[in-house]
Amino acid sequence: MTKTILLKNRPEGKPSMSDFEFKTEESENTVNQGELLLETKYVSVDPYLRGRMSDAKSYVPPFQLNKPIQSGVIAKVLESKNDKFKAGDFVSGMLNWQTIQISNGEGLTKVDPSKAPLSAYLGILGMTGLTAYTGLTEIGKPKARETLVVSGAAGAVGSVVGQIGKILGLKVIGIAGTDEKIELLKSKFGFDAGINYKTTKDMKAAIAEAAPNGVDIYFDNVGGPISDAVLVNINRLARIIVCGAISVYNNTEAPKSLSVQPFLVKNSALMQGFIVSNYTDKFPEAMKQLSTWLAEDKLTYSETIVKGFDNIPSAFIDLFEGKNKGKMVVEL
Amino acid sequence: MTKTILLKNRPEGKPSMSDFEFKTEESENTVNQGELLLETKYVSVDPYLRGRMSDAKSYVPPFQLNKPIQSGVIAKVLESKNDKFKAGDFVSGMLNWQTIQISNGEGLTKVDPSKAPLSAYLGILGMTGLTAYTGLTEIGKPKARETLVVSGAAGAVGSVVGQIGKILGLKVIGIAGTDEKIELLKSKFGFDAGINYKTTKDMKAAIAEAAPNGVDIYFDNVGGPISDAVLVNINRLARIIVCGAISVYNNTEAPKSLSVQPFLVKNSALMQGFIVSNYTDKFPEAMKQLSTWLAEDKLTYSETIVKGFDNIPSAFIDLFEGKNKGKMVVEL
Repeated sequence: MTKTILLKNRPEGKPSMSDFEFKTEESENTVNQGELLLETKYVSVDPYLRGRMSDAKSYVPPFQLNKPIQSGVIAKVLESKNDKFKAGDFVSGMLNWQTIQISNGEGLTKVDPSKAPLSAYLGILGMTGLTAYTGLTEIGKPKARETLVVSGAAGAVGSVVGQIGKILGLKVIGIAGTDEKIELLKSKFGFDAGINYKTTKDMKAAIAEAAPNGVDIYFDNVGGPISDAVLVNINRLARIIVCGAISVYNNTEAPKSLSVQPFLVKNSALMQGFIVSNYTDKFPEAMKQLSTWLAEDKLTYSETIVKGFDNIPSAFIDLFEGKNKGKMVVEL
Repeated sequence: MTKTILLKNRPEGKPSMSDFEFKTEESENTVNQGELLLETKYVSVDPYLRGRMSDAKSYVPPFQLNKPIQSGVIAKVLESKNDKFKAGDFVSGMLNWQTIQISNGEGLTKVDPSKAPLSAYLGILGMTGLTAYTGLTEIGKPKARETLVVSGAAGAVGSVVGQIGKILGLKVIGIAGTDEKIELLKSKFGFDAGINYKTTKDMKAAIAEAAPNGVDIYFDNVGGPISDAVLVNINRLARIIVCGAISVYNNTEAPKSLSVQPFLVKNSALMQGFIVSNYTDKFPEAMKQLSTWLAEDKLTYSETIVKGFDNIPSAFIDLFEGKNKGKMVVEL
């Protein structure tokens, strides 16, 4: 039997279990020429998927109602009639939230379980790592001794951004939502300082204190009031990588924030929306660098691994309550 | 006798006459070696000067209290002990709001009254034209047939931006605050469409209607709710040149606007604070291009010329009520 998760409703505000529908049916095991039969092993759940559940104009088309949801998946090849893959291979790609599926192989990459745990190919050696590396280097253009602030710092992307910042000689300040996460930023990921936005009354002052020379680069995963507090602390020629806005993804009305224009003008600062898929030409270099740093133990990562196909929707929903540390992955 | 205008108070909110002080004193006519004696002919008043009247951190140091205010000035050389200039020359530069003054010549450029009216060197052939040209080309990176929206379109910079946009083959939509200005945008400056933000109830819909293919480039002079309405209409990979934020310069509290982050992320859009002085290496090319277009009658400009030294402060204040059409200049 094959289980599939479909998008039943477009979420209003925070997604809920009733937005998802489970379907169980007989497995379709007929593999045509050029195709693969895949068994899903790991499923990535990511904040950006929230955007695809809405039908607002965006950089990728929205998920269709009553069709399978897709995200990054690691799967095992059960049967192959495609020259590029053979049974027993493991592959990574954008695939359905489905236990067993057929693919034509397009967009799939072979991954090597002897070099890193399979789940790492959804995280530090997958979109997460590529996002952190290309966002920070291509837009942030870091120079040693500059100050980098990362929001959502204990998240999948944020924790990698901070570590790369340290490797490149930056002063790195992370913002996260629990004392435990702040501790982790400093002890495990080597951040210079951490700020718990839930217990800090004056975020603007806290950032000014942690960054006495001002903020040169802001890697923004959250948007909203946290980003407002960083913005008032930016330096001349600051670069702001707008990678995500998880704090406002579930807003049903367009959220209000500080007007950014005066700060951008007076600092000649840059704010750039970042989508990793615009930087595919940088992926080979990025993968090489990330693998090297990982092998040299210069990079580490956290994962929150949830078990069981049926828990994919709840794992996704938990992202918006910050229940994950690092990359959230569902293991089948 | 020499008259000087000093900054008496840092304005709270909108500047008022009481923020300025006039001083009259015996002229200091001693010209030392290397110096020039200058008679002020035209004084430029510009929105950005509001920023220098505050003591907030900015890209240029604030004006000092009880010291002369400075802006772009065209002056006649009355006497010269500087090899680069001679009596009778006209010069352009950042000079005091002062009828007669001594300069060491630093930062002054000779201007030719036979090639263009003197006031043009404060406008289309001065900072105004350079701002329009370098902002639009360096950050906007226009491609023919794209859609450009300009706010503050009937202002000094905006009216030049729109014309350059047309020369470069763009569809150009201007936003301004009176029907008369809208008419001028279309009849004099060749804009394809104009929107009067004061009489338009639904700016978002009006922009969507004027830009059915979406907005690729937004040259923003105003910030605030007008910019919010443009932002929701931007295309993927849109470029937003944040040149000014006149609508919020006088706010005493940091203004709130639409959160820009979600729009930047989902469109991979760029928002860049623009200061013309960061692009001095592009000035020769820009001046050449602007002069050529002006000589070919491809560019035209509007000026609001106010007469009399004593009217400099009120001319400056009038900028914030949109009383100028095009470049506001005071003639002595």
